[in-house]
Amino acid sequence: MSLLTVGTVAFDTIETPYGRADQVIGGACTYISWAASYFTDQIHLVSIVGDDFPDEELQALTNRGVNLDGLEKVAGGKSFFWAGRYHNNMNSRDTLATELNVLADFNPVIPEAARSSKFVMLGNLTPAVQMQVLKQLDGTQQLIALDTMNFWMDIAMEELREVIACVDLLTINDEEARQLSGEHSLVSAARVIHSMGPRYLVIKKGEHGALLFSDEDIFFAPALPLSRVFDPTGAGDTFAGGMMGYLAKTNDTGIENMKRAIIAGSVLASFCVEDFSLNKLKALSQSDINERLEKFRKMMHFDLIYT
Amino acid sequence: MSLLTVGTVAFDTIETPYGRADQVIGGACTYISWAASYFTDQIHLVSIVGDDFPDEELQALTNRGVNLDGLEKVAGGKSFFWAGRYHNNMNSRDTLATELNVLADFNPVIPEAARSSKFVMLGNLTPAVQMQVLKQLDGTQQLIALDTMNFWMDIAMEELREVIACVDLLTINDEEARQLSGEHSLVSAARVIHSMGPRYLVIKKGEHGALLFSDEDIFFAPALPLSRVFDPTGAGDTFAGGMMGYLAKTNDTGIENMKRAIIAGSVLASFCVEDFSLNKLKALSQSDINERLEKFRKMMHFDLIYT
Repeated sequence: MSLLTVGTVAFDTIETPYGRADQVIGGACTYISWAASYFTDQIHLVSIVGDDFPDEELQALTNRGVNLDGLEKVAGGKSFFWAGRYHNNMNSRDTLATELNVLADFNPVIPEAARSSKFVMLGNLTPAVQMQVLKQLDGTQQLIALDTMNFWMDIAMEELREVIACVDLLTINDEEARQLSGEHSLVSAARVIHSMGPRYLVIKKGEHGALLFSDEDIFFAPALPLSRVFDPTGAGDTFAGGMMGYLAKTNDTGIENMKRAIIAGSVLASFCVEDFSLNKLKALSQSDINERLEKFRKMMHFDLIYT
Repeated sequence: MSLLTVGTVAFDTIETPYGRADQVIGGACTYISWAASYFTDQIHLVSIVGDDFPDEELQALTNRGVNLDGLEKVAGGKSFFWAGRYHNNMNSRDTLATELNVLADFNPVIPEAARSSKFVMLGNLTPAVQMQVLKQLDGTQQLIALDTMNFWMDIAMEELREVIACVDLLTINDEEARQLSGEHSLVSAARVIHSMGPRYLVIKKGEHGALLFSDEDIFFAPALPLSRVFDPTGAGDTFAGGMMGYLAKTNDTGIENMKRAIIAGSVLASFCVEDFSLNKLKALSQSDINERLEKFRKMMHFDLIYT
């Protein structure tokens, strides 16, 4: 099945305790597409860049099966840019610069062929822009997932709730789940968020893993403990891309397959953080992925013996 | 197999956002023994109390198969007392009072019959006192576990390292693992701590679960997400008690059984936090425990499908 992803394609400048990367490739859509490309080659990417964005990066995406018909290139424009600095523990970061550039005028037009995509991943964007995308879909979608952040809860809660009401899966972090629901307990928060619309909720906890809530079930995927987390930028988008790519490949949104999709996302995210930008993510083999899937199985599997 | 546990038996006064409990039963040894008693009735408890400690609480422990020959009662003495207040998020707390009372003169004497216990759980105490216990053991132990905290790393690191060198399993939280090892990554921290002696390391992360490290393997047990965490006091000791009780019952310290023991500990801890003191922990049935074991299985199990 095909996957449509809408979001940023951008440049990042990153400082971590391990070093600095200037003006490297970033953006939610970029991470989502690369991660998903390990599971499916039917990907439609809808985004906007300036003419400063390197052609070879776009060619590399095309080579992975990513259709760029929905990528708008603005002549004379500059691509979206974000700069951030991570603290020693890698769990918190300061934003040093956000330059919207061409993103300020992003009016996504979904190509005809992409409007019937069975799986849709909306990266973090203004809720009004996310809604514009939803209105262009043909209504035959199997699963629509939405990523967002506290910033939109602070300044555009009403529009955000409208778009949340239209999706099947919401991905946010634990503090955002608490802010959105007004509940401290994540179990109670999930109940409130289900009542807003989405049948699935994924709560991302960074180094502490991710929780999947359906109405009835809870599933937990740990983050793989690593000797060195080099750069967490893009890990959440990579997680979402791996998950959605796996769903598009398997075309099954039942709870047991959702669990496998969450693991697939966690596996891809574990590679993402091992280097700056997409460096590690671009160079994976199928056996790299399978080996790490096996690590997750060993880390989580136990034989149940009742007392 | 029998289990020896040495640590505090105490009173706590607890304030949480949900209420206050004055002068209720607490202490590491109390939580450890109650939790372990759901798996084995061969438990030796070694601790010290004043004559203010209620007889019916001791009788309740005896009824669960806990041998109190090693419990010293000091006539005219007052039992150890701790008071604390939890913040809104339940992840951090302030200590309002610590009164050592009879604990200041605790010189544990291990009863003859307990010296050959195959499993030993040393609750958090002065490292010198923990070492005193180890010197009284007959050397036939299958697994000795040690709990400690940052306080001893700050003021008695040398003695602490001596006692850590003598045990098979160390339980600490993530920040303590970083402090003890000087490494930020928990994978690197585990490597350093293995080189100090223990073949197993359990890193407790509270609401984020627990990690088990052996030389070769990593296993992760999530904490069960709950609608309401009422009072986290004793959860770490309850986890350790459930784990050690399960090991004493099954007499197998191989990695696959260690995984099951970690789950058993996580199940018991999930009950502990649902009420003040030992209120919930004292009233469990075998089917309560089995139902929750099944919840953990559903929360962690996925069918691996290679890509």
